[in-house]
Amino acid sequence: MAANYHKITPNDLEVFKKIVGETAVLVDQASLEKYGHDETEDLVFTPEVVIKPNNTKEVAQILAHCHQNKIPVTPQGARTGLSGGALPLFGGIALSMERFNRIIFIDEKNSQLTVEPGVITQVLQEEVAKVGLFYPPDPASKGSCFIGGNLAENSGGPKAVKYGVTNEYVLNLEVVLANGDIIWTGANVLKNATGYNLTQLIVGSEGTLGIITKAVLKLIPLPKWNKLMLIPFSSAEKACEAVAALFMEGITPSGLEFMERDALIWTAKFINDQSIIIEDNVQAHLLVEVDGNNEDILMNECEQIMTIVEKFGALEVLFAEDQAQKDKLWNLRRKVGEAVKSQSIYKEEDTVVPRYELPKLLKGVKEIGKKYGFHSVCYGHAGDGNLHVNIIKADLSDENWNNQLPIAIREIFELTVSLGGTISGEHGIGYVQKSYMDIPFSSIELQVMKGIKNLFDPQGILNPGKIHQD
Amino acid sequence: MAANYHKITPNDLEVFKKIVGETAVLVDQASLEKYGHDETEDLVFTPEVVIKPNNTKEVAQILAHCHQNKIPVTPQGARTGLSGGALPLFGGIALSMERFNRIIFIDEKNSQLTVEPGVITQVLQEEVAKVGLFYPPDPASKGSCFIGGNLAENSGGPKAVKYGVTNEYVLNLEVVLANGDIIWTGANVLKNATGYNLTQLIVGSEGTLGIITKAVLKLIPLPKWNKLMLIPFSSAEKACEAVAALFMEGITPSGLEFMERDALIWTAKFINDQSIIIEDNVQAHLLVEVDGNNEDILMNECEQIMTIVEKFGALEVLFAEDQAQKDKLWNLRRKVGEAVKSQSIYKEEDTVVPRYELPKLLKGVKEIGKKYGFHSVCYGHAGDGNLHVNIIKADLSDENWNNQLPIAIREIFELTVSLGGTISGEHGIGYVQKSYMDIPFSSIELQVMKGIKNLFDPQGILNPGKIHQD
Repeated sequence: MAANYHKITPNDLEVFKKIVGETAVLVDQASLEKYGHDETEDLVFTPEVVIKPNNTKEVAQILAHCHQNKIPVTPQGARTGLSGGALPLFGGIALSMERFNRIIFIDEKNSQLTVEPGVITQVLQEEVAKVGLFYPPDPASKGSCFIGGNLAENSGGPKAVKYGVTNEYVLNLEVVLANGDIIWTGANVLKNATGYNLTQLIVGSEGTLGIITKAVLKLIPLPKWNKLMLIPFSSAEKACEAVAALFMEGITPSGLEFMERDALIWTAKFINDQSIIIEDNVQAHLLVEVDGNNEDILMNECEQIMTIVEKFGALEVLFAEDQAQKDKLWNLRRKVGEAVKSQSIYKEEDTVVPRYELPKLLKGVKEIGKKYGFHSVCYGHAGDGNLHVNIIKADLSDENWNNQLPIAIREIFELTVSLGGTISGEHGIGYVQKSYMDIPFSSIELQVMKGIKNLFDPQGILNPGKIHQD
Repeated sequence: MAANYHKITPNDLEVFKKIVGETAVLVDQASLEKYGHDETEDLVFTPEVVIKPNNTKEVAQILAHCHQNKIPVTPQGARTGLSGGALPLFGGIALSMERFNRIIFIDEKNSQLTVEPGVITQVLQEEVAKVGLFYPPDPASKGSCFIGGNLAENSGGPKAVKYGVTNEYVLNLEVVLANGDIIWTGANVLKNATGYNLTQLIVGSEGTLGIITKAVLKLIPLPKWNKLMLIPFSSAEKACEAVAALFMEGITPSGLEFMERDALIWTAKFINDQSIIIEDNVQAHLLVEVDGNNEDILMNECEQIMTIVEKFGALEVLFAEDQAQKDKLWNLRRKVGEAVKSQSIYKEEDTVVPRYELPKLLKGVKEIGKKYGFHSVCYGHAGDGNLHVNIIKADLSDENWNNQLPIAIREIFELTVSLGGTISGEHGIGYVQKSYMDIPFSSIELQVMKGIKNLFDPQGILNPGKIHQD
């Protein structure tokens, strides 16, 4: 596939400079290296050029040229992704959307937001919170990731358990197609039965069908109160069992995070917080948040939660007493990924199953680990059944790491799918999961997806090598 | 296009009888007439044969034969649709899914439901309510419509304002493709970043891309309490203005319905309820429901609502005192469509705009009515900005009805789109709206949709003549 692509020539660079201006076309080595990686493992694929367009028309002109000349284009947000979605596998253009950083319109009257893809998710959240509105999806990287990347990967985060993931907040998208045509996918409405749902086809398509240049998002009222508890368990499986029990009692937390012992210990060390002490008998924690507009009701819910988790052997609950403590606990959770990464070479799998199946998944992952001799640290959004399985290289041989591990991962994914789940809950398939797509999908299903890809991008220039096997 | 289709021969009928059995293949005149209409105006298009398959394999075999022989297939639910989606425009097969009426599995532990498409929506709701679970989408026809039709049209209903429409409850679909291939579109999980969102591409595609044979739906905890109020206004526009004001004060009702004066008067007459008295100065009503798990909080919300609507000139509020009165008020709302239909020849448009733009839409519709000399009765799901505009023929000449009205409807839709809205909120495009698809969508956008249609159904056998202009 790579061989077919046109290599970028000085003439192409002149074309791009005419479109976006001299300073927005970078070919220096430092830039090529910087835009050659995201947060996925230690993978690097340098582009031939980095281009930073500033508006939709520029993106359209760039794509029209690339479509005509078969030049690969890898759209990039903040490059915080964990599936290699932003890696320019075939060189070509790294199309950084970082200058699309405008919040165009906060429509308070309709609880909507029009935004460009290069806005940092947390910035967006803070802006709308100023007028009492709430954009819930909050990936761990919310302080640095872009909303455009969230749209491309259909990102989740802790709030998804109550409020849903990114795609539930997308009303309408401006998208540049592979040939440079510009479309809007829907309308700025809460319900829509007008033709095919192009909006939801683009969300989660990882930049392989088109490039998002504007998004109209749905906002909801910002809840006034929240309560946060850290609940230790002496058994990780029991912690997972408690998760489904909470929902079956009618409680819908606004966060329900699971962390194995190692995740918390490593993270406390990573952020150098000696105040966090994990007792010897603690094997896992649940971090549980409830939110709403009535503080008394939330206190009641917390009491209900404590009663339920006790049945699953919960140990002494830490109730966050003020905002500082809440921030500390959430920071701890958000830093787990980085902490694990700093510890060892690793691979992160983003398994997701129906919530009640979580204990079976956890148990199975550990059994597979034993069989293949690897250690894993598991954490994630337990309320959604979304378990991040971090497989640690530690002292595994390179031979085992390179040859045995893919077989072990395949077993993990087969287990996941057999439990009604799938291989990515919120990170996307990107580059590193694509060889496992035959597990959740039949060849016919994959063929349908490839058909859609070919329809939208007949030259195969948009984020090539992602999602689909060649 | 019609000319290209293969007419069904006795040989085809034999093939079908072999697949589904003698008794499930109907060619008697009464059946052909019965399955030749839905609830859209007085339109009738008789099929050549009615087939009632009983399982996925039968559907697959039927489609494989039709794909090979270019026989048109119109999938049918309960034929309660309002956009002509179930009309067999080109004859061929009316494929009634009425025997797919099994609730396969209520998964209490994961709050999920696996169901066949021929289950009546209300039956499904009542079954899951028995175990404390809630499937919110509730079209006015919920007592007779099928969940499969709801999926095909992405149906809404009063609860959508708080809980969202059908597509927000769909996790995974079994679909038979045009050539008889069977696929599952996703996984039984709450979050999914694994390939393209085929699930959301099928939901709302009105049977033009495939035939849904099973659905896995998300359920939520059933709220314990609700309160219902009927609020009269002396100005219809003021009533609409009050709608956005409620949301801007942070209230999210579980129902927020708007009915013009005539809608209520005609319906009271239609259901022969003389207890409903509409004072002379009342021009419109809002029907407002709140729900939740704490009755005191709901009472507080009701008081807040009353304070807000007073600012918009609300008259004396009727507070439903018991379940019987609630049922009566909801029945009144649900019967509006039928009541208007019984009054005169009519056309119903399913406009939807961002909520705050509703007063502008209503005002514009009335002005367009004056200009073209027609009377309209408006009602609908005001909380979502979804206004059903019923245009009444009354004593309009046939000439005006047939030639002038399409121009007037075009103006209404142009206004809708200019306000950020679109031409169908929940009824679908089907047959009767397809000639207006150029208003919300550019030719490029329509071309993308047609491309998808051709990819899924290259022979054009699936529900031909719907959504797309020939």
